[in-house]
Amino acid sequence: MEPLVGIIMGSDSDLTVMQGASEILKQFAIPHEVTVVSAHRTPHRMIEYAQTAKKRGLKVIIAGAGGAAHLPGMVASVSTLPVIGVPVKSSNSIDGWDSVLSILQMPNGIPVATVALNASKNAGILAAEILGTGNEEISQKIEAYKNSLNSEVIEKVEKMKKAGWENKFD
Amino acid sequence: MEPLVGIIMGSDSDLTVMQGASEILKQFAIPHEVTVVSAHRTPHRMIEYAQTAKKRGLKVIIAGAGGAAHLPGMVASVSTLPVIGVPVKSSNSIDGWDSVLSILQMPNGIPVATVALNASKNAGILAAEILGTGNEEISQKIEAYKNSLNSEVIEKVEKMKKAGWENKFD
Amino acid sequence: MEPLVGIIMGSDSDLTVMQGASEILKQFAIPHEVTVVSAHRTPHRMIEYAQTAKKRGLKVIIAGAGGAAHLPGMVASVSTLPVIGVPVKSSNSIDGWDSVLSILQMPNGIPVATVALNASKNAGILAAEILGTGNEEISQKIEAYKNSLNSEVIEKVEKMKKAGWENKFD
Amino acid sequence: MEPLVGIIMGSDSDLTVMQGASEILKQFAIPHEVTVVSAHRTPHRMIEYAQTAKKRGLKVIIAGAGGAAHLPGMVASVSTLPVIGVPVKSSNSIDGWDSVLSILQMPNGIPVATVALNASKNAGILAAEILGTGNEEISQKIEAYKNSLNSEVIEKVEKMKKAGWENKFD
Amino acid sequence: MEPLVGIIMGSDSDLTVMQGASEILKQFAIPHEVTVVSAHRTPHRMIEYAQTAKKRGLKVIIAGAGGAAHLPGMVASVSTLPVIGVPVKSSNSIDGWDSVLSILQMPNGIPVATVALNASKNAGILAAEILGTGNEEISQKIEAYKNSLNSEVIEKVEKMKKAGWENKFD
Amino acid sequence: MEPLVGIIMGSDSDLTVMQGASEILKQFAIPHEVTVVSAHRTPHRMIEYAQTAKKRGLKVIIAGAGGAAHLPGMVASVSTLPVIGVPVKSSNSIDGWDSVLSILQMPNGIPVATVALNASKNAGILAAEILGTGNEEISQKIEAYKNSLNSEVIEKVEKMKKAGWENKFD
Amino acid sequence: MEPLVGIIMGSDSDLTVMQGASEILKQFAIPHEVTVVSAHRTPHRMIEYAQTAKKRGLKVIIAGAGGAAHLPGMVASVSTLPVIGVPVKSSNSIDGWDSVLSILQMPNGIPVATVALNASKNAGILAAEILGTGNEEISQKIEAYKNSLNSEVIEKVEKMKKAGWENKFD
Amino acid sequence: MEPLVGIIMGSDSDLTVMQGASEILKQFAIPHEVTVVSAHRTPHRMIEYAQTAKKRGLKVIIAGAGGAAHLPGMVASVSTLPVIGVPVKSSNSIDGWDSVLSILQMPNGIPVATVALNASKNAGILAAEILGTGNEEISQKIEAYKNSLNSEVIEKVEKMKKAGWENKFD
Repeated sequence: MEPLVGIIMGSDSDLTVMQGASEILKQFAIPHEVTVVSAHRTPHRMIEYAQTAKKRGLKVIIAGAGGAAHLPGMVASVSTLPVIGVPVKSSNSIDGWDSVLSILQMPNGIPVATVALNASKNAGILAAEILGTGNEEISQKIEAYKNSLNSEVIEKVEKMKKAGWENKFD
Repeated sequence: MEPLVGIIMGSDSDLTVMQGASEILKQFAIPHEVTVVSAHRTPHRMIEYAQTAKKRGLKVIIAGAGGAAHLPGMVASVSTLPVIGVPVKSSNSIDGWDSVLSILQMPNGIPVATVALNASKNAGILAAEILGTGNEEISQKIEAYKNSLNSEVIEKVEKMKKAGWENKFD
Repeated sequence: MEPLVGIIMGSDSDLTVMQGASEILKQFAIPHEVTVVSAHRTPHRMIEYAQTAKKRGLKVIIAGAGGAAHLPGMVASVSTLPVIGVPVKSSNSIDGWDSVLSILQMPNGIPVATVALNASKNAGILAAEILGTGNEEISQKIEAYKNSLNSEVIEKVEKMKKAGWENKFD
Repeated sequence: MEPLVGIIMGSDSDLTVMQGASEILKQFAIPHEVTVVSAHRTPHRMIEYAQTAKKRGLKVIIAGAGGAAHLPGMVASVSTLPVIGVPVKSSNSIDGWDSVLSILQMPNGIPVATVALNASKNAGILAAEILGTGNEEISQKIEAYKNSLNSEVIEKVEKMKKAGWENKFD
Repeated sequence: MEPLVGIIMGSDSDLTVMQGASEILKQFAIPHEVTVVSAHRTPHRMIEYAQTAKKRGLKVIIAGAGGAAHLPGMVASVSTLPVIGVPVKSSNSIDGWDSVLSILQMPNGIPVATVALNASKNAGILAAEILGTGNEEISQKIEAYKNSLNSEVIEKVEKMKKAGWENKFD
Repeated sequence: MEPLVGIIMGSDSDLTVMQGASEILKQFAIPHEVTVVSAHRTPHRMIEYAQTAKKRGLKVIIAGAGGAAHLPGMVASVSTLPVIGVPVKSSNSIDGWDSVLSILQMPNGIPVATVALNASKNAGILAAEILGTGNEEISQKIEAYKNSLNSEVIEKVEKMKKAGWENKFD
Repeated sequence: MEPLVGIIMGSDSDLTVMQGASEILKQFAIPHEVTVVSAHRTPHRMIEYAQTAKKRGLKVIIAGAGGAAHLPGMVASVSTLPVIGVPVKSSNSIDGWDSVLSILQMPNGIPVATVALNASKNAGILAAEILGTGNEEISQKIEAYKNSLNSEVIEKVEKMKKAGWENKFD
Repeated sequence: MEPLVGIIMGSDSDLTVMQGASEILKQFAIPHEVTVVSAHRTPHRMIEYAQTAKKRGLKVIIAGAGGAAHLPGMVASVSTLPVIGVPVKSSNSIDGWDSVLSILQMPNGIPVATVALNASKNAGILAAEILGTGNEEISQKIEAYKNSLNSEVIEKVEKMKKAGWENKFD
């Protein structure tokens, strides 16, 4: 199937962080592509990627980058697709603040849907939610997923009760 | 027409900031509703709003709040719709950091699509982009809008040239 | 005995940090319960927990959470009991600032009694102090505890003197 | 009636911020006293105030201070009463961070129940909640107060609907 | 004369801040051009500007922008000219941190010579210093300028002495 | 009398902030001099000032500066006198953080005695305390001064009591 | 010999950081004492220590503490001796900011001479500089020490030259 | 060949970070020198280095330092050469903020071309770009270098495609 979501990142060193987006999309069976597009090292590739994204059938772009992270914002400036930005805490980052603010604080007219630091999994879920606005099947998968999060907590709570974990304390 | 986007905010004092979202959606002729839903003062109303949003036909929720801003994240925890969070710089905010971090740093499983501080206009554009993934007409309006941003800059540049503004400097 | 203090946390990964609250309450022989309640993954359980807390005999709630930490504030919005918030420095936290500000910066009307980052022990002591306002026995235990802190320091000072530790320096 | 809550502040310049605590306590008809106690300019008065507070019948102390704000923590070190700290954003404060961190980040053994920057009103409500743990009448006043917060929001929502405020937007 | 320095900014609202660069270059009689180039609203114009800069005879580019400021870094990624970045404290900036970090924290391979917040004058002086490395006349102008800064201070000191300003104090 | 304390500042625009140091020294009748010494605009004057300070009879140097504030640290590197640094919140400062950190975070071997942001008065008091270590008369003036701070608070407290200020609240 | 400098710290866990002050004072042969004084756990001991310090012959107090670090400021409020504050980066500190701001941002009237984070060595040197204002022998030791810092750098530079370290690079 | 670029650093402990500048200059065959110049420990050496730099044939100075980093700014105050500042994250740094702000926030008149935290490689590239403004050969080396960055990314993308890396994900 043709990919609906494009996952791009500024460097292959971001791969460890960014694969979370791909994993959750696979779990939702949403076809997607993964590649490296660097705003600073491959500016023309970036422009072309963003410009052709919609024509190639993509509906959402997930872009992750660290430091002075320009990839999400620049892709958003060229494409009309919703762009989800993932701030990556890279090695010489100032505690991640540089990446967060470079992605989040976009000027009027060019939004980037920013998620938490390193939260590529949430970027994948958000992409699914966006696709779900036009696709009931995906929407129901998200509902099931959120229910499963709930169930996991409840199960843990039950196990703790049985194992006497709480008794240990009172 | 039935609203496709729900714009909610934690307090009516957020209205000045949040109306930017409504204005741009009106410009795109996207039907939407605007109301006050407080996570802390009306928790049950918030749960109900989030729980019924999809049934009532909403596709996207825009939630703005200041300080310890729990509204966007809590709505995202109850609904499966994409939730766009607008950090509002309220009066006793610590420079807006409280609001930004309370909305952005959501845990795995429950994303909020966060935009810049006070950037309700961008929240509206992002909502349109999300709707545009399933609606070519809206998608083209966004393209026209982005082109108009481009044209505005070019026009200013031309005016400056003619008015001799640059000559003034060299 | 029926628990007087409810210790809840957003995830079982917060347990290592949060058990400090339970340990000090055990030391004060104050009955308490410990469980996981996630604002984002189990919002309905959270509402129910908060709504029934007082009826079940709880006097104080201690709530710990990391990142965009909404649990303490949301519990405070539903219950009339005093809620003590413990900011937890979780793995993808931005140095703990997200958790601190999400818990501390509550709007007018809905206070959360916030303690230091990861300071669950202090949350337990604060809960005891609150119970002590209506229970002289507990109040005296706290006094004894504070005296013991004093004595520990004095003892160390004496040991250092005898061991010639200070002589080493002058 | 004898005061149950002591409201103290480091300087009379904090009075504008701190009177919010007194106003809400008056609303709840909780007797309280208000005075200036400076950790740095009147250290002996501070020690004495803290040491005699319980004997004089106080149940809770609210302490507000700005900058390097030592008053709440030092009072907590001498008294066994619960101490609520209000960080005040004073004139030469570094955006309030100094005051917030000086009050919040207390070491193990000596908690201060910190509320938001300048949030003296919330300090008053928290004091009432603490007293409410041993006094059902106060507890019900708090419940009524929280319900009134809810009602105020609902009323505003209704007014907006009637006045066509929402129609204005869609 | 053909311009040697290109001064660009993300928006005409940055003009008040950025004209300091032009003024000092005029003072040094260094020909330059001034225009608006927006990374986000006119990405293609930006690429073209950067790509043709050297061919058109420019030696240095000064780029100012606020918020998530991508202009300096993106121009640096396309051009081989030295790029001086001026962080601008725009209206919805988070105290200027967003702009500073977006410009400063560039990844390996693509430097931006960042100056202080709003310091367009220093950007102009730095551009002159860069041109001065190959042009002794400009280099001497900078020396004269730095000497004049020195003289201004010395003159003020002398005036203060004569006017008895210091006597006032001792 | 020969000055014992040298008050210097990086720019005459710092004078409004820095005169607080002179005023308190006058109150203590400690002879002192006041002048402008810029680390960046008059580096040689700065070196000379620092190198001759002790020979000229100075015992303590108070140095105030804003932004990247190098004056206190550089003076400390050349002189063996104790140097008190006053961070000044200048116009384009990033909330004063630049000035505070540039003065405070000196490397091993070269301390600067840093006081609070804009706290030139405290710099003057600290200078007096330092002189007081070798001069009992000055030491007693400081004691009297600290007692007067105490008395001022006590007087205000008494006035408030008489004026019924506290009654107003309970 | 009677100690001239008192080195105190809030907890014996600060000893590793604080021993740097003692080591440099030993190097300068300045008699001093070292002990633990906790503002929060031993408030009365702290008051007494500060109140008797001058009578016991101390000239300077060095106080180190972490987190909400009240020890330096409280000692300064009781004593008229110059107090040097050492912010200690303790285990649950928020990157050291809490400790730095709690010590630095003292109100008008009560200065603390703050040194860099963990910079106890600099606190010792500053104490020596203060004593040197009344003691030429100590003053000359400091001069010798600063000269030795200079020599160490020059020696390293020479070694590098000889070893061809620089040749390695060009 | 005579060095064109001087690389200096405040301490030999900065060598690990700073050698990146030398390595890239070697790659560009640009002659340079490397040595230690400490603003605080060798102030006279620093003044002399800066004052003679131009006469000795240097065109650009790269200065790296950590903590309260005064070296780049002080060298810029004495020399008329462009000075590139490299903030170094030293051991007791407050997350690198001290170094970044001490170098970046220079006052009007004395610019420092600041690069990212620890980004000595970028300092070297920037030095090359500056030299390239007057030397077409160097300019072309930079162009080749930037092209190689581009090629490296493209090659990795191709390898990923062939290795089926992307297939793994969709």
